[in-house]
Amino acid sequence: MFKFSSQYKTMAKVLRLGKVEFAHEKWAKLSQMAEVVECTSKDRQQFFEDLKGKYSDITHITRTFASVSQTGRFDAELAGKLPSSVKCVAHCGAGYDQIDVDPFSERKIQISNITTPVEAPTADTAVFLVLAAMRNFQHGISLTLEGKWPNGEKCAGARLGHDPVGKTLGILGMGGIGRAIRDRLAPFGFKRSIYYNRSRLSPELEKSTEYVSFDELVQQSDVILVSVPLNANTRHLINDKVIKSMKDGVVIVNTARGPIINEAELVPHLKSGKVGAFGSDVFEHEPEIPSELLHLSNVVALPHMGTHTYEAIQEMEEFVVDNVMSCITSGKVNTIVPEQKSIF
Amino acid sequence: MFKFSSQYKTMAKVLRLGKVEFAHEKWAKLSQMAEVVECTSKDRQQFFEDLKGKYSDITHITRTFASVSQTGRFDAELAGKLPSSVKCVAHCGAGYDQIDVDPFSERKIQISNITTPVEAPTADTAVFLVLAAMRNFQHGISLTLEGKWPNGEKCAGARLGHDPVGKTLGILGMGGIGRAIRDRLAPFGFKRSIYYNRSRLSPELEKSTEYVSFDELVQQSDVILVSVPLNANTRHLINDKVIKSMKDGVVIVNTARGPIINEAELVPHLKSGKVGAFGSDVFEHEPEIPSELLHLSNVVALPHMGTHTYEAIQEMEEFVVDNVMSCITSGKVNTIVPEQKSIF
Repeated sequence: MFKFSSQYKTMAKVLRLGKVEFAHEKWAKLSQMAEVVECTSKDRQQFFEDLKGKYSDITHITRTFASVSQTGRFDAELAGKLPSSVKCVAHCGAGYDQIDVDPFSERKIQISNITTPVEAPTADTAVFLVLAAMRNFQHGISLTLEGKWPNGEKCAGARLGHDPVGKTLGILGMGGIGRAIRDRLAPFGFKRSIYYNRSRLSPELEKSTEYVSFDELVQQSDVILVSVPLNANTRHLINDKVIKSMKDGVVIVNTARGPIINEAELVPHLKSGKVGAFGSDVFEHEPEIPSELLHLSNVVALPHMGTHTYEAIQEMEEFVVDNVMSCITSGKVNTIVPEQKSIF
Repeated sequence: MFKFSSQYKTMAKVLRLGKVEFAHEKWAKLSQMAEVVECTSKDRQQFFEDLKGKYSDITHITRTFASVSQTGRFDAELAGKLPSSVKCVAHCGAGYDQIDVDPFSERKIQISNITTPVEAPTADTAVFLVLAAMRNFQHGISLTLEGKWPNGEKCAGARLGHDPVGKTLGILGMGGIGRAIRDRLAPFGFKRSIYYNRSRLSPELEKSTEYVSFDELVQQSDVILVSVPLNANTRHLINDKVIKSMKDGVVIVNTARGPIINEAELVPHLKSGKVGAFGSDVFEHEPEIPSELLHLSNVVALPHMGTHTYEAIQEMEEFVVDNVMSCITSGKVNTIVPEQKSIF
């Protein structure tokens, strides 16, 4: 463990954006080696003012997904307002699409995200959505809640589902979450498991999953799992043209970010049955979901619950503090984002 | 494959109870070696009449879960009305609690059930329910469908869930389905996996799952999966007294038969939170579900969809025909029920 020297306290001042749910002990430890300041700015304008005033000597920042309502996106404008004393921004999430990395890199500010703690709970969510979508379980649950089962129809009239047997599973994006999904679905009996990723994985990481091109993946998969980060290259990656190249009745599951799928272009394909079912934890304009998408009986819509567990939130919050502690003691965060790996 | 001799046709007459959905080719093959008669009796009384008349020379019977509406239960009374020419009753399901085996054994009539084809789809259903119940996913989905997400609450206000990490998984009944559930949940990170079964499994079947007593299982598990057949010994196996001995916040999942759980005694424990969540595919008086159970936000209720897939139904229907074909050609069904194993 760290040896806490009083020198840190005089040097480090951590600005905390967003609230802490469970990692209070860990934050208490951090407060032994740094001054911790909770951000009270009400909006972006006030935040910019405070950065010139009471936050002008902060050295480290932690932030949550929800704190975007207090500060707006971490973009070039915001990066330009930060005092030169800031060493890092430790983000409490895997996806950091709320942060434009380049302007922070230019100012030599490290950005860290959450890696391992989100993998298991997000992958569990993906497996739930795969089963829900393939089997039409949500259709059956909704009919049951509406009181339709006692009418005498088998399974309350729910549409028949499909089993993994004989099917091809395609994973789009084979980072830690994609691999955790692959590992969990391995015993379910899919005939073939394929993936596409920016770069091919090493054999140890690849295991029995077959590397294919993006086009091959979308054309050959019966079930497509979307697990890529959101950025300019992946926005609307799944659109009308791509969907048309998919198999009839394809099942699509998204546990990454909503804007990777063009929702307006997806809806007609769900209505026609071209896309057999869609299970998603994320939406293009969440928390808004277009009614014509949400209420289709072949859609399963979760309200971004991928890491919504006691265990995951505590572990993520502790992971953020570890990144700050590491930056204070060694000058480097533990999990720098890939774009900055060659810089720091 | 079989060589079809015309002798079978003159000897075998198969009475089919319940409709065939997909295995039409297989039934066409059976009709080359036997006369196939579809049961047209409207109720039990007419069925008994027909057994003395147009069905008086049937030799084999196939039946479905739903055909109970035509004939009532296969009990001592019904067994006593069957012509002495009947050799077997091939049931299209894993659970055969609609059949009282003893009176059929006395009349030397073999009973077969479905074994392997139900294992994967039922285990997939169990995994879905485990994830849905542990993670409060159904609560989140319902709140989203009600339009609650845009109100600004994180995850639409859904209760936080739990991850498998650090938890004990208990499987009650370690037959083919129990083992298929165990295999599917293996990669999810439970700390410990225990089971109770009438008899301890061989090491090959047991794998890393630990054999414990019934009392130990209910007392030590964080998640309890019910996968035992329904019979006089298992009716209301999960009742008020047993639930009181469970861990606080235990998650219970039932993919076996409804009456194994005393529903009236379960409800107060769901309301108090003693039982944290309940996911079930089966209900004590299905298709009726008590409203005070169905509409609890920690309940996930599927309308008996365990094998509700194209692939499973076709495979089950073919499996039934295989049992009849085997009985015609060799005198023995392929998958005789355990109670009859020492008799035939």
